[in-house]
Amino acid sequence: MSALINRRDLDFMLYEMLDVPALCQTPRYAQHDRDTFESVIEAAHALAEEKFLPFAAKLDASEPHFDGERVHIIPEVKEALKAYVDGGFLATAFDAENGGSQLPYVIAQSVAALFASANGPAVGYTLLTMAASNLLNVHGTEEQKTRYMRPMMEGRWFGTMCLSEPQAGSSLGDIKTRAQALPDGSYSISGNKMWISGGEHDLSENIVHLVLARLDGAPAGVKGISLFIVPKFHVNDNGTLGARNGVRLVGLNHKMGCRGTVNTVLSFGDTPCTGYLVGKPNEGLACMFHMMNEARIAVGLAGVMSGYAAYLFALDYARQRPQGRLPTDKSPESKPVAIIEHSDVRRMLLQQKAYVEGGLALCLYCAKLVDEKATAEDAKQKEEISLLLEILTPIAKSWPAEFCLEANKLAIQVLGGYGYTRDYPVERHYRDNRLNAIHEGTHGIQGLDLLGRKVTMKNGAAFRLLLGKIQQTVQATAGDASLAEFSVALGKAVEVAAATTQTLAAAAVQGKVDLFLANANLYLEMLGHIVVAWQWLQQAQCAHAGQAKATAADRDFYEGKRIACQYFFRYELPKAHRQAELLAKLDDTCLNLSPSVL
Amino acid sequence: MSALINRRDLDFMLYEMLDVPALCQTPRYAQHDRDTFESVIEAAHALAEEKFLPFAAKLDASEPHFDGERVHIIPEVKEALKAYVDGGFLATAFDAENGGSQLPYVIAQSVAALFASANGPAVGYTLLTMAASNLLNVHGTEEQKTRYMRPMMEGRWFGTMCLSEPQAGSSLGDIKTRAQALPDGSYSISGNKMWISGGEHDLSENIVHLVLARLDGAPAGVKGISLFIVPKFHVNDNGTLGARNGVRLVGLNHKMGCRGTVNTVLSFGDTPCTGYLVGKPNEGLACMFHMMNEARIAVGLAGVMSGYAAYLFALDYARQRPQGRLPTDKSPESKPVAIIEHSDVRRMLLQQKAYVEGGLALCLYCAKLVDEKATAEDAKQKEEISLLLEILTPIAKSWPAEFCLEANKLAIQVLGGYGYTRDYPVERHYRDNRLNAIHEGTHGIQGLDLLGRKVTMKNGAAFRLLLGKIQQTVQATAGDASLAEFSVALGKAVEVAAATTQTLAAAAVQGKVDLFLANANLYLEMLGHIVVAWQWLQQAQCAHAGQAKATAADRDFYEGKRIACQYFFRYELPKAHRQAELLAKLDDTCLNLSPSVL
Repeated sequence: MSALINRRDLDFMLYEMLDVPALCQTPRYAQHDRDTFESVIEAAHALAEEKFLPFAAKLDASEPHFDGERVHIIPEVKEALKAYVDGGFLATAFDAENGGSQLPYVIAQSVAALFASANGPAVGYTLLTMAASNLLNVHGTEEQKTRYMRPMMEGRWFGTMCLSEPQAGSSLGDIKTRAQALPDGSYSISGNKMWISGGEHDLSENIVHLVLARLDGAPAGVKGISLFIVPKFHVNDNGTLGARNGVRLVGLNHKMGCRGTVNTVLSFGDTPCTGYLVGKPNEGLACMFHMMNEARIAVGLAGVMSGYAAYLFALDYARQRPQGRLPTDKSPESKPVAIIEHSDVRRMLLQQKAYVEGGLALCLYCAKLVDEKATAEDAKQKEEISLLLEILTPIAKSWPAEFCLEANKLAIQVLGGYGYTRDYPVERHYRDNRLNAIHEGTHGIQGLDLLGRKVTMKNGAAFRLLLGKIQQTVQATAGDASLAEFSVALGKAVEVAAATTQTLAAAAVQGKVDLFLANANLYLEMLGHIVVAWQWLQQAQCAHAGQAKATAADRDFYEGKRIACQYFFRYELPKAHRQAELLAKLDDTCLNLSPSVL
Repeated sequence: MSALINRRDLDFMLYEMLDVPALCQTPRYAQHDRDTFESVIEAAHALAEEKFLPFAAKLDASEPHFDGERVHIIPEVKEALKAYVDGGFLATAFDAENGGSQLPYVIAQSVAALFASANGPAVGYTLLTMAASNLLNVHGTEEQKTRYMRPMMEGRWFGTMCLSEPQAGSSLGDIKTRAQALPDGSYSISGNKMWISGGEHDLSENIVHLVLARLDGAPAGVKGISLFIVPKFHVNDNGTLGARNGVRLVGLNHKMGCRGTVNTVLSFGDTPCTGYLVGKPNEGLACMFHMMNEARIAVGLAGVMSGYAAYLFALDYARQRPQGRLPTDKSPESKPVAIIEHSDVRRMLLQQKAYVEGGLALCLYCAKLVDEKATAEDAKQKEEISLLLEILTPIAKSWPAEFCLEANKLAIQVLGGYGYTRDYPVERHYRDNRLNAIHEGTHGIQGLDLLGRKVTMKNGAAFRLLLGKIQQTVQATAGDASLAEFSVALGKAVEVAAATTQTLAAAAVQGKVDLFLANANLYLEMLGHIVVAWQWLQQAQCAHAGQAKATAADRDFYEGKRIACQYFFRYELPKAHRQAELLAKLDDTCLNLSPSVL
């Protein structure tokens, strides 16, 4: 089996669960079919395995360093990224008119999954470049697209997103970077930015920073933030590079994991630094957030794949490694069994499988929603898809960061002492994945976003829509004896989620906003587990349908889906009920805690 | 507040919870009183803070390396260990007749906690040395004690425990290292040992390896294992060092964390390697396991302190760091609040506090049991203490490794991006602590030990004794209005634990041993949470008693205990009920899984 992903599983999700080829009936994807999807995924898989995977451990051990003049990154990164660009993978989802393959986002995310599994930190540079390109594609002027976006789309220049500052991470309303209008229509940018991935390197000819800053006299808070292009090198009218702009590397952040993606502190304006306004003044955050759903789904998927890669490694190890005997065998003369024979090891593997395949199903479902939203012709349908995507995004972002990290932890445990050494990749995945609960909005931010914004938006329309969708699956599986246990359990979970949400909402209506939001993160965990249970029931349903005409290998595959679904419903879903009970009590232990007693 | 521990909390545990000075009424500790305990803890605290803490990050970043000739360890380690030995901390618990301070084990563990918090990897060398010394003190001949134990007790030589081999970690019955009798009564040792902490270094003049090996013709399995002393340098009759013995460093294991404790692969017998039998032939494992309870409690405590140190850091950070506003404040003009004001941050801090202080209470309680067992004069009482210690040991070992690791994860989250960098200690603690679920018996081994051995031993005597103890606390707190909620909840949890255990035991009696043990690790989590809830109720009880005569600062401290108890009962204890429900179903999902479907 591949070290990157179970390809049978990916096919199952794309073609049996999501029916991605149906997108080819829309004008946007009419030039594609399943064959083109398969060939691009095949090519991505080969490249990820051949060019990215081999140096993942080396990149972790030899993280980028700054000698005061330039940032050094091991040459394998540049070489691999060149092959990636040459293979067309940067342009997978870009519009054809921009030179892209115009493939569905869900296919682009499947491609991203393969590279994330092989070497997430190396491929990180391209994800930032795609995001910056997409942002300019929507919000940039034609001139900005020609001058800055096209070279990024061609992979010659890379991009960054400069949001956080040393004093303002989660609270973007407090950023201080200034933008002063210059007579020529450009702006003078000054300030400091923190946690900027890909902020300085020689991997590309130029770097296009997208920078949030305040215009002089702008309103306080998030309504006074504007967005600017700040190129590392100035760009001449003919597209050639000019002198350096006034953005300077102050230093690198040295992280526990994801070490291969250089993370920087940048200073703007020590020497004159020119920026160019994107979109309208004071609407910078809206421009940035336009990309945020996709960025958050991508972070979720990265978390999934970190767990998935580690799971595959642990599974293979457990099949090979002999150790100990079963409890029923008391003979010291007998041969040790492979550790996969031990019930506790099986539990750890099944738990990993339930987490990573459940997370993958959720992220790809969300990615497909992005495509459906882009292609929907009916306004009401588009609105519905948009609402679903809004409410699922914080879950797709946070759930994998929490539970696929747990999968990483279990993968180490399966390997025992070996798993704790840097000779095996599982500890590296564990370190890498720990980032995903922090960047692109922490768990805390996602919890508040889910309960405080998404659940309540439009009088609960998104929430009702989601529960309705889950109910459809409950009803569709109720009559099937092999799925009835799960169908009933999911139906109950939906009722509990609805009741719990009503109790919380009542508190909000009574003006107890702080109490309403006090345990928002437990709410995120509760709804997350219900949503992933839903994904599992759908997988079991598809697997059941597939069993009828299955080959022997496929029968095992489908049975694996059924058993992982069973595991999730019996061992995991009850956690949602526990959280629901607690939430319904509107417990104020944390809210009203006096800090002095800690 | 100290970075190492909340000293008020340690005092609370030693003097209000455990009444450690009561031990001074026994002959063994008659020369001590609370003053001597306090002064040794004070001195340890100062030394840990001044000599160990300052280089903890450096040691992690500059792990020991092997140049093919010798192992290099940064000089701070040797210097700090010398100060530690000179301060008498190695000898804290050794008998007076061996030059030790003969302090209670619970005081020795309190001292160990301080060093573990400051720099666990550096102090690791001494823990191994203590364990080897204690083992020889019980099982060695007088000649072995003079020749090998005393120089270890004096801190001139260090010790190791050589159990695992590359093919046999959890399954010690499968070790292959051979011992062949030589005419002079010594043995020729040959084989390979894996995961040997402190296996090679220049920190001490000599290294005393305690090695498990098989005599020729010994029975297969655990009943054919003997224990040998294998010194790095031969020891002359006058105690001076002779030539090198045939134990050779093959290489170092490079770990995710705990990097400062050199971990080695050793080869015995490439050149003649002489060993000396300790105890009787084929009884080596029993000798080793004689020390195992204490070693496991020490591992549990190390896990606690890793979490505790990170919690204190996160707490301090949360008080200092401004970010964001409360949900009730919509004004962008208002100043950001310290993040400790956010409910979700408070939840994360309270969760950490509940885990680390709950874990500390459990480990110190177990340590006190070690003292009570050593000093009990009544045989029945001694037997009871011994049973309690047996059943609590796998919990004290595993629970902190799981939940104080969770505390480490939360500490990172409180710091956000900063917590993910190596500029702050929280990511290091997280990496260090991940080891504790693996060494000295993995989680899987502890689960089997608890359910398969300790719960069932002597017809359930240990289990009944433990539940009886918990019931005593339930009864003692039932009449107190401020504790009634917790008292009732703990009473119910005990009933559930009893019923669940009965259901499981019934399966075992019916010969379904595999089903009985299939989810042993969930059982460990269930009983672990109940035991820690018990520790929390006792803490709340003591705090309640203390409130009456408390100063203002003490009132806050006691209220912190009450609120953390409330947190544990409302947010954590329900997890035990969820596990109990699952266990009572004797679910065979994992047991009967066919590996081919994974």
